[in-house]
Amino acid sequence: MASTPEQNDTARLEAFSDGVFAIAITLLVLEIRLPGGNATLAQKLLATWPSYVGYVISFVTIGIMWANHHAIFRLIGRTTHGLIVGNLLLLLTVAFLPFPTTVLADHLRHGGGDQRTATVFYSATFIVIAIGFQLLWQVASYNNRLIAPGCEDAAAEVSRSYRYGIPAYTFTTIVAAFSVPTCLALVGAMALYWLIPRGRVR
Amino acid sequence: MASTPEQNDTARLEAFSDGVFAIAITLLVLEIRLPGGNATLAQKLLATWPSYVGYVISFVTIGIMWANHHAIFRLIGRTTHGLIVGNLLLLLTVAFLPFPTTVLADHLRHGGGDQRTATVFYSATFIVIAIGFQLLWQVASYNNRLIAPGCEDAAAEVSRSYRYGIPAYTFTTIVAAFSVPTCLALVGAMALYWLIPRGRVR
Amino acid sequence: MASTPEQNDTARLEAFSDGVFAIAITLLVLEIRLPGGNATLAQKLLATWPSYVGYVISFVTIGIMWANHHAIFRLIGRTTHGLIVGNLLLLLTVAFLPFPTTVLADHLRHGGGDQRTATVFYSATFIVIAIGFQLLWQVASYNNRLIAPGCEDAAAEVSRSYRYGIPAYTFTTIVAAFSVPTCLALVGAMALYWLIPRGRVR
Amino acid sequence: MASTPEQNDTARLEAFSDGVFAIAITLLVLEIRLPGGNATLAQKLLATWPSYVGYVISFVTIGIMWANHHAIFRLIGRTTHGLIVGNLLLLLTVAFLPFPTTVLADHLRHGGGDQRTATVFYSATFIVIAIGFQLLWQVASYNNRLIAPGCEDAAAEVSRSYRYGIPAYTFTTIVAAFSVPTCLALVGAMALYWLIPRGRVR
Repeated sequence: MASTPEQNDTARLEAFSDGVFAIAITLLVLEIRLPGGNATLAQKLLATWPSYVGYVISFVTIGIMWANHHAIFRLIGRTTHGLIVGNLLLLLTVAFLPFPTTVLADHLRHGGGDQRTATVFYSATFIVIAIGFQLLWQVASYNNRLIAPGCEDAAAEVSRSYRYGIPAYTFTTIVAAFSVPTCLALVGAMALYWLIPRGRVR
Repeated sequence: MASTPEQNDTARLEAFSDGVFAIAITLLVLEIRLPGGNATLAQKLLATWPSYVGYVISFVTIGIMWANHHAIFRLIGRTTHGLIVGNLLLLLTVAFLPFPTTVLADHLRHGGGDQRTATVFYSATFIVIAIGFQLLWQVASYNNRLIAPGCEDAAAEVSRSYRYGIPAYTFTTIVAAFSVPTCLALVGAMALYWLIPRGRVR
Repeated sequence: MASTPEQNDTARLEAFSDGVFAIAITLLVLEIRLPGGNATLAQKLLATWPSYVGYVISFVTIGIMWANHHAIFRLIGRTTHGLIVGNLLLLLTVAFLPFPTTVLADHLRHGGGDQRTATVFYSATFIVIAIGFQLLWQVASYNNRLIAPGCEDAAAEVSRSYRYGIPAYTFTTIVAAFSVPTCLALVGAMALYWLIPRGRVR
Repeated sequence: MASTPEQNDTARLEAFSDGVFAIAITLLVLEIRLPGGNATLAQKLLATWPSYVGYVISFVTIGIMWANHHAIFRLIGRTTHGLIVGNLLLLLTVAFLPFPTTVLADHLRHGGGDQRTATVFYSATFIVIAIGFQLLWQVASYNNRLIAPGCEDAAAEVSRSYRYGIPAYTFTTIVAAFSVPTCLALVGAMALYWLIPRGRVR
């Protein structure tokens, strides 16, 4: 019966999530601001490079998350209260990302402890997002409970690939405490790796 | 005939509402700002805790509202002018929430009367939103006028559960005048209660 | 053939427009800000009333525009380049509304010439939006060119009702130059009039 | 099989893109701000003209991009990882546009080198967006790999018309270094050209 939320209807859940992803990714630009002072505009535009770095990394990373979200919802056959809750908690972590991105951009220019703190904070946010994804995926895939018929194999593959997210970002966060550029290079490389074309995957 | 707004077509109304919910929930992050001053970044990030609290409570609450909106529109079979109006008034109250959330976060750190005022204002906004939901639901469910055939029982259940919203938030608002932490704990607990998994509900 | 934009496909045009309406309406809250100074929070919250007035009038008015947009697109059977252009110009005027709303709220508190200027500017924006609607509707309805078969009568009715928008807002704009409260009362009344339930319209 | 992202399903990709376009276009208004100082409001509203110019040009240009995006996705029959990546990179450039628009508006009023720098930066952003479109289109149209059956001719036509974007904006960027008004007139004219009604195109 079509009258309870315990139903096979992921369309509106996906539309809502698409909205949150799209807005979070587009809000990133609002945090790019020119520095004050007496330099020429050309100098200020160059000095804004940390904001560009943060914009690109965060944009690509949210884009990848959206693609992942899209991919796993293709495998999900029905909606439950638990799925709505898991999805909401994931969105809570994704929509938070513009804040650490600004914090990072604001402190990347200056060296010292605050730069490290900002990078740890930025990288740690990705751990929390990875936990959010893991949680959502557990809700959906445990015993293939919400997996659409015929998608069990693809679901198992997703489960395998999701093993690496939390450890990977935990590693980059530890690295951040020692070397800011190495941490950002790793996070950027993980995004780039995803971007490169790949052979036909099953 | 498909040419007047008095028609069975809730799809675009839901899409528009999804957009407003998604944007309101994502705008919350824009209101998180670091305090000024000479502290280290780590100290500032910790001192920002009231913004995190406000972000999480408001995010989860808007998410719950979205889920409720979603659930009741599953029961609604057709759109009327009155439904569009009721829905618009509800969205007016939901989209307002980022403002009291900022006010709360900005005043939570400091004690005294302003902290209480901010919490009363925040909690009172939920009363207004609950009134908005009640209004929308009355428009839709009065005499089952707009309820889809076969969904009457589910609609009656929604009517029962909606009885508690206005009194509950009226209570937390009164509590806020006496104890800010108790009010926030209650509002947070109401959100958490919704989040926990529940047995199979009909 | 499905390969040119000259096609019967208004779905994505409506989705894009829904997005712009939903964002413009939700951005309004970002412009509500507490005044500075030494007053208590309660006093500041009261002193913010012009922002609340602007928020409510603009929110309801954008909501009405959305509903109108929704209503006329129900009558439109196919998309042309001209329709996309007309729709874009309309959205350009709608998405501009948060700016005059802020200007109005910022100057309503203080009397004098600036208050009048702000109100004229605010009301004049509605003239421009009404022109945008008229333009879009002319593109769609001229010779019933894009009107879906069977919707000609409903289209004629829309054409009749659209006659009043531009003169009405021209009138309120002239009124604004003489009396700010009268102008706002009229604009608010026009929004309220739309909100009240109405008998069965054909 | 419906379980991998290598699938014929562009609907959610388009919905996400629509969201980003709609948000980027609507955020433009947030960057319009009155100058400070002691002038009357009427004088300030007039002095804000560079923001209006930037708003209109950027709004129309993003609108045209959306229409182009819409048009090419009508020809695309299936989604691949490469298409998602190409689309994401395009959105990255489009969502960036509010920043150069603000930079332009902030520096247009004052003459001198910064005005020129701002215009070069603004115009150069369009080169990057044109590259993004070219990239996306190459991914989709190379060997008609992702083109829907029967749309090959329309795709060839798009390929032809896309030849001019990068050179055209490279030209306006070079012009900007010599004459700011000429550059803006050209960019505006390119947008206007698109807006004018055209005869029946195949």
